[in-house]
Amino acid sequence: MTRLLLLGAGRSASSLIQYLLAHLTTEDWHLTIADVNPEPLHAQLASFAERAQAVAFEIGQQERLHELVAGHDVVISMLPALFHPVVAKACLAHGKHLATASYATEEIRAFDAEARAAGLTFLMECGLDPGLDHMSALPMIEEIRAAGGQLTSFKSYCGGLMAPDSEGDNPWRYKFTWNPRNVVLAGQGTAKYIEHGHPRFIPYQHLFRRIETLGVPGYGQFEGYANRDSLSYRPLYGLENIPTMLRGTLRRPGYCAAWAALVSLGLTDDSYHLGNAASLPWSELMESFLPPAVTATSLAERVAAQLNLAPESEEIARLAWLGLFGAEPVGLPDATPAQLLEKLLTAKWQLQPHDHDMIVMQHLLEYEQEGMTYQQTSSLVVVGDDATHTAMAKTVGLPLAMAVRRLTQGLVPHRGVVIPVHTDLYEPILAELDADYGIQFVEERHTLTRNVMASAAQQQ
Amino acid sequence: MTRLLLLGAGRSASSLIQYLLAHLTTEDWHLTIADVNPEPLHAQLASFAERAQAVAFEIGQQERLHELVAGHDVVISMLPALFHPVVAKACLAHGKHLATASYATEEIRAFDAEARAAGLTFLMECGLDPGLDHMSALPMIEEIRAAGGQLTSFKSYCGGLMAPDSEGDNPWRYKFTWNPRNVVLAGQGTAKYIEHGHPRFIPYQHLFRRIETLGVPGYGQFEGYANRDSLSYRPLYGLENIPTMLRGTLRRPGYCAAWAALVSLGLTDDSYHLGNAASLPWSELMESFLPPAVTATSLAERVAAQLNLAPESEEIARLAWLGLFGAEPVGLPDATPAQLLEKLLTAKWQLQPHDHDMIVMQHLLEYEQEGMTYQQTSSLVVVGDDATHTAMAKTVGLPLAMAVRRLTQGLVPHRGVVIPVHTDLYEPILAELDADYGIQFVEERHTLTRNVMASAAQQQ
Repeated sequence: MTRLLLLGAGRSASSLIQYLLAHLTTEDWHLTIADVNPEPLHAQLASFAERAQAVAFEIGQQERLHELVAGHDVVISMLPALFHPVVAKACLAHGKHLATASYATEEIRAFDAEARAAGLTFLMECGLDPGLDHMSALPMIEEIRAAGGQLTSFKSYCGGLMAPDSEGDNPWRYKFTWNPRNVVLAGQGTAKYIEHGHPRFIPYQHLFRRIETLGVPGYGQFEGYANRDSLSYRPLYGLENIPTMLRGTLRRPGYCAAWAALVSLGLTDDSYHLGNAASLPWSELMESFLPPAVTATSLAERVAAQLNLAPESEEIARLAWLGLFGAEPVGLPDATPAQLLEKLLTAKWQLQPHDHDMIVMQHLLEYEQEGMTYQQTSSLVVVGDDATHTAMAKTVGLPLAMAVRRLTQGLVPHRGVVIPVHTDLYEPILAELDADYGIQFVEERHTLTRNVMASAAQQQ
Repeated sequence: MTRLLLLGAGRSASSLIQYLLAHLTTEDWHLTIADVNPEPLHAQLASFAERAQAVAFEIGQQERLHELVAGHDVVISMLPALFHPVVAKACLAHGKHLATASYATEEIRAFDAEARAAGLTFLMECGLDPGLDHMSALPMIEEIRAAGGQLTSFKSYCGGLMAPDSEGDNPWRYKFTWNPRNVVLAGQGTAKYIEHGHPRFIPYQHLFRRIETLGVPGYGQFEGYANRDSLSYRPLYGLENIPTMLRGTLRRPGYCAAWAALVSLGLTDDSYHLGNAASLPWSELMESFLPPAVTATSLAERVAAQLNLAPESEEIARLAWLGLFGAEPVGLPDATPAQLLEKLLTAKWQLQPHDHDMIVMQHLLEYEQEGMTYQQTSSLVVVGDDATHTAMAKTVGLPLAMAVRRLTQGLVPHRGVVIPVHTDLYEPILAELDADYGIQFVEERHTLTRNVMASAAQQQ
């Protein structure tokens, strides 16, 4: 018997839990789910009474954490990423494996030698992004290399969006399927990538204006903005010298231009408190970001002028739809602009029970082979079943659950801090996602051009 | 005999030292100047052999600091402001008075009760800005109040600039007379002020675009941008409910628009390192802040396009004058953009020995009195003697020296953390600056309008 401990049973753990329960008996697992609110789990676990239990646990409870970890063999953490170092330390202290869908940060990587020495596997980045991005990109890269191709460009985008049937009348075509605060603060700092051998830096103020348009057959158009650090992925993928490398986030067309307006107005700023009353109307807050009025124009017109936009532009329409020019109170006293925006968006962009979310991932590769330049794309679209088994929960939870299953089967030989860049880890997971869940990447290949330099060389 | 200890004898201490030496005998002072580099001072102090000495001192030397402080009666600190808490603690430990030209920060204010209990005076904000600004604004405010006027607007600007004869061919009409790093990072964060009763917040990206134009008779036009926090001055000046309060910084016309271009490009960002080589040409660095070129236009044209500016605009001319589009190496490896900009500007904006700097300060007050609205301005212009006795050194050092003189004469009754908002402190200093140094504010008063509401009321 293998004793699994799942820390955190929030929204994005639903599919993970379903998978673990489905394999309890066949894998001879015993599962403990430790969450701040275990009550709702009892009904779901009732039929697995001897093999599954839900217990109360809060992350601040250090002793309780050690007690729980000590009593299990593998710890799966769906807690917010900032708690993972504490969990990792407990795993080291009691000699337990760890699996998460979060980044292998510097802080986590610092445990590598110790985990390795103790024969432990700390599986990180086993969700969607990071996770499925690695698992799906690497076989493409390997295949091109094996055929003698030379990669010249790797771009990869991912977004958690809404299925077309659930976008409704929301002109942003976006609702929250994960942490709203992360969406509000997205891109702060400077985005770094490399294009045609030139390092490129995009200051935050320009980030949502410098976008690329992508299409996914059957699902229409998307726009992508650059993630904070694309360069660190080059060594990870063995692409140290690739001239173009960019990772980005997908939104529906028009989102980025309107978000750039919010950024420019200062509404995403989390660095200072406004000293406002909770009853402050949104229109008054907007007023405070503008120069004093000199003519009797409307607030929307003055915001448009400040942003160099037409009052009838789509950007201003999206801001108006959010209620920025209206009399609704901001609802929080002495908040940062970002906190007020998050509160507003959480109300406006709330997932409804009948909604279907949608995960879109696309890799765009360019490579040269025998004097020709090719473009290869690989696209994944996953639509959620409902507001519980969202596409987000499936794509984050299932790869992680499958990785844990392979770990408990003794099929993961790697020790220390491990991310799924190993064939023996990602191949069976991709196969299982495809066969059992229809989660499948669609590839397309185009001949771009005959490489002029190479063909000139051939003529000599 | 009163024993004075001056910590720090950098550029802006020259006029302070000159004043202290001039009064050594009459005031029966003994002066010790403690600086990291005391050698250049020996010649200047030779003729005061028994009353003045220069000694070596580095701020890290805690024991030495305590030894020095213990042996004197009043400590004058011209060290960078961040060291003042350490100096203040030493003054408390040994029961000594302190005087500086730096802000009474929260950290310094925390010593108030203790200093007060020990009968000590910690004179802060006794330089130019902060310092002369308080000293010159308060008598205006008091005078208006005494005449029954009601203040409706207080704006105050100050700038350390170049005298017209020393601006040369520099299109920015600016050179460094104080810490270049502070100039490069100026305005980061969000500026807060209040206008017509509305709190206003200016995000950094808009700060240098939302400017006000001011004129000083005989010295031409200036432009002012808002300082970070104007609101905290309201209680200080007893103007808790004034509808408009703004403090700002002066530059010559055109500076702010061109600086806004540097901000927008990301060149003032100090939050990340570029990973660059020291030999990287400036043109290559600029390239990295742009989207990849799609047509064969010049770098300057592409920068102009990125900034929504005409290639022949004055802003682009100012960037070109700095050498941003040229092949000169940036000169520092793995630096932040702000560090590279600072290095470049330090070379381009260097004060020459024959240069005269110029301090400009202007207060603009509006008030209502007997149904009329008045505007009153008070302007100060101080031109430097040379590159040693700069206007900056005079206006920072002389008020501080005069405040110390009054302290040693027993004419400062205030204890604890004190700033010069007291009539008995600022009046004699203003009088001495005027009489002995010709440092004098020029006032102008205009009738703006008959107050319509008040005149309507009078008709009833």
